[in-house]
Amino acid sequence: MTSAGELRRRTLESLSRPSYSIASRDMLLLNDNANLFGTNPAVAEVAGSFDFSRLWAYPSENSDSLRERIASEFGVDTGEVIVGNGSDELLDMACKSFINPGDAFCSPSPTFSMYKFYARVNLARIVEKPLGPGFSLDAGPILSEGAKLTALCQPNNPTGGLFDAREVSRVLSESVGVVLLDEAYADFCGSDMLREALSAPCAIDTRTLSKAYGMAGLRAGFAIARKEVVDELRRVRTPFGLNSFTEAVAIRALDHRRWVDEKAAEMRRERANLRSRMDSMGFQTLPSECNFVTARCPAEGTPFVAALRARGVAVRDCSSMPMLEDYIRVTVGPRWMMDKFVAEAESAISGGAP
Amino acid sequence: MTSAGELRRRTLESLSRPSYSIASRDMLLLNDNANLFGTNPAVAEVAGSFDFSRLWAYPSENSDSLRERIASEFGVDTGEVIVGNGSDELLDMACKSFINPGDAFCSPSPTFSMYKFYARVNLARIVEKPLGPGFSLDAGPILSEGAKLTALCQPNNPTGGLFDAREVSRVLSESVGVVLLDEAYADFCGSDMLREALSAPCAIDTRTLSKAYGMAGLRAGFAIARKEVVDELRRVRTPFGLNSFTEAVAIRALDHRRWVDEKAAEMRRERANLRSRMDSMGFQTLPSECNFVTARCPAEGTPFVAALRARGVAVRDCSSMPMLEDYIRVTVGPRWMMDKFVAEAESAISGGAP
Repeated sequence: MTSAGELRRRTLESLSRPSYSIASRDMLLLNDNANLFGTNPAVAEVAGSFDFSRLWAYPSENSDSLRERIASEFGVDTGEVIVGNGSDELLDMACKSFINPGDAFCSPSPTFSMYKFYARVNLARIVEKPLGPGFSLDAGPILSEGAKLTALCQPNNPTGGLFDAREVSRVLSESVGVVLLDEAYADFCGSDMLREALSAPCAIDTRTLSKAYGMAGLRAGFAIARKEVVDELRRVRTPFGLNSFTEAVAIRALDHRRWVDEKAAEMRRERANLRSRMDSMGFQTLPSECNFVTARCPAEGTPFVAALRARGVAVRDCSSMPMLEDYIRVTVGPRWMMDKFVAEAESAISGGAP
Repeated sequence: MTSAGELRRRTLESLSRPSYSIASRDMLLLNDNANLFGTNPAVAEVAGSFDFSRLWAYPSENSDSLRERIASEFGVDTGEVIVGNGSDELLDMACKSFINPGDAFCSPSPTFSMYKFYARVNLARIVEKPLGPGFSLDAGPILSEGAKLTALCQPNNPTGGLFDAREVSRVLSESVGVVLLDEAYADFCGSDMLREALSAPCAIDTRTLSKAYGMAGLRAGFAIARKEVVDELRRVRTPFGLNSFTEAVAIRALDHRRWVDEKAAEMRRERANLRSRMDSMGFQTLPSECNFVTARCPAEGTPFVAALRARGVAVRDCSSMPMLEDYIRVTVGPRWMMDKFVAEAESAISGGAP
């Protein structure tokens, strides 16, 4: 009798998905970069007016209403927009659309670990190019790989900074394959490389409503790309992938750009404050354009993360990532959350009981 | 400059996903087998009590609360349950977990067309074995293929009947690969082959809350399998795949078994009535254990479906499927919907203006 493990797809042998399960809902969740400054006002608005009695019906097949709203927001055609159940689904679609078995997937490293996960699941050969000094991007080594699919995160998670836009542009315009440009955190700093992505031969600009837009619990992401690229992604897309309630909220959420900007401004003030407090405590913080601060711990990283967790505070342990041994990533939230983090971090460093 | 089409994954060259977009929301939707008898009462209950202000936060990574509820409902361990954004996601996970490029995927034909879609996207070689007389299943030809992944739908969509349970059991117990047993329609007829699936070496029993459970708009599906099989599926699963609101509703929806059974009983009465009316009109209807009636049209199928559509009634055109030329599939709904279908069908057959 053959076991399930023996029947496993070959590239999955040593695959391990990053686990987020270390955190429970009653902890202070500084580990996943959701918007800790609140929920998008669209959620309450739509919850109060949505026709819940209609949920016996399937959602629209391709979320056309949301696609139209996104197109109008970004000044593109509806045919240049595709939505996903979180931007994760778009990463998976990009791999499924373009990766033949053994094709190279390339990304700088360290970056968001899920790119590599989806690429491996979808049979790519993974190539990672280390970032340069100050976690900077050099287009040369990336381009020289000639990868079928390249992923870049601008600004970059978990290092927090913006890459030099000229290097990103070079990757976009000179790649022989497809470039996935993940702008998940762009709303926090006003960066926007959509025009560069749309003028590149074959690029996919992914966005999410889970970060600055404050609706991670509903799972909505989207991508903008030239129509011929979107057409390829649509070939592999699950029909009815976005549920009806999420679609309705997402449409309205895009009306709340001002709320997003206000919360982002508040976050930036708290981020500056947090950095200076962490620096005083002996952390070496990295400059950040995102809603998190990544820093080298004054002690060993992994036990420190565990000690914080025992104190009810979840942060991301970056130790397993190249160049980031003993680094942690802390999502920025309102003052009381940062106070709690600082207090528990001090306690953990001094070795007090949780 | 390389075009997106030239970069396309090889197995996708001639792929065409079944399109559901022929129907718009203001049509009478008899084309997708959602529960036309209403929305699960859990939707209104949860909508009235859910903490929408918490939707800034990510959902639970693996939907553990829903998995526990499903486990208790079906008398299995939580580790034997996995959930998906609709059961579609579970089909995709099964392919990703077990298909190496070129491995055989086998299903009887005709059956639900999305099995083959996901298998092709995920690089399988597709093998289809025609059903026998009366759309019956013969385990022999399926087993002789030695496929890596085999999919069976019990009762079968779109032919509507239950396969002989002994033949299904043989496929489950004697396959050298993985068997996906889709029981999406089992709630309509009381069929349940979970025990057979769990005692098979490597089977996955998929279920959905989009049909009898009346919540297609929220996208929730799940699968039950032996823990070692679920562990394989989890390796490739997108974290946070099910949104928080859907998870909360799905947990409560399982409390409404009595509602499901009552609506299924009502549906069966209407199904019998619809069949006899269709037979009188010259359709050749097939016996059905599902919430649809599949029938050979008294006229050419595809133009008839178009004529119905012009009259505001969407039904499924089965003409492109083997053995089903000129067949349509009609979802069973309350009497007024069936009256409308019959009236428009009569008008379409007699060639009157829409």
